[in-house]
Amino acid sequence: MDFKPINLQEKLSKFTDSWSPKIIAQINDYHLKIAKLQGDFVWHMHDDTDEMFIAIDGEMEIVFRDGKVVLKAGELFVVPKGVEHKPFAKNECNIMLIEPAGTVNTGDAGIEMTAKDDIWI
Amino acid sequence: MDFKPINLQEKLSKFTDSWSPKIIAQINDYHLKIAKLQGDFVWHMHDDTDEMFIAIDGEMEIVFRDGKVVLKAGELFVVPKGVEHKPFAKNECNIMLIEPAGTVNTGDAGIEMTAKDDIWI
Repeated sequence: MDFKPINLQEKLSKFTDSWSPKIIAQINDYHLKIAKLQGDFVWHMHDDTDEMFIAIDGEMEIVFRDGKVVLKAGELFVVPKGVEHKPFAKNECNIMLIEPAGTVNTGDAGIEMTAKDDIWI
Repeated sequence: MDFKPINLQEKLSKFTDSWSPKIIAQINDYHLKIAKLQGDFVWHMHDDTDEMFIAIDGEMEIVFRDGKVVLKAGELFVVPKGVEHKPFAKNECNIMLIEPAGTVNTGDAGIEMTAKDDIWI
């Protein structure tokens, strides 16, 4: 076993692209991912899974059809499965995501913002 | 839906007991827990599940039979299932844990440090 901790800031320093989650750890069949958000994402939902957003720094919004949640550093929110949402960040925001391995970032909205779901960093 | 974020520091301010994880969110059948660590825990392992430790502040160690990992704020480590480990914190350390719902803190070592596994805060 490699006794080296995984450092969030070190992992975040390894990429610059927005809306492209990177896997940094696996717990059973779940992935812990990190991502950089800036600007508007697409409306989508995940039919089969909840999705947890944790803000590491900066500020993001999760917009719903009937409201929104603002997340600042050290705040988190679980989007229930089957609920349409649209992430947004006015300025760059770093987040963690926890979701089952293989979860696609755009959910049911397969478009050009779909990222590869298996990039480890 | 309640559009209120979950704030880690606010949740951490609600309890003082060490070695007693509290659930703050659920993703499908997984729990996100927070805990305060201080001193020595017991040697144990989880036969059926990996366990993720994320240090929020302070410093903790995860001691293994053949080495150890030191986690500072913003660092994390996944203890693989079936691997004996002993958490330790010289000074109080706040952490997040991600593991399947129902995971018992002492794993296979059922003793007086076993906490109830279903306390939401």
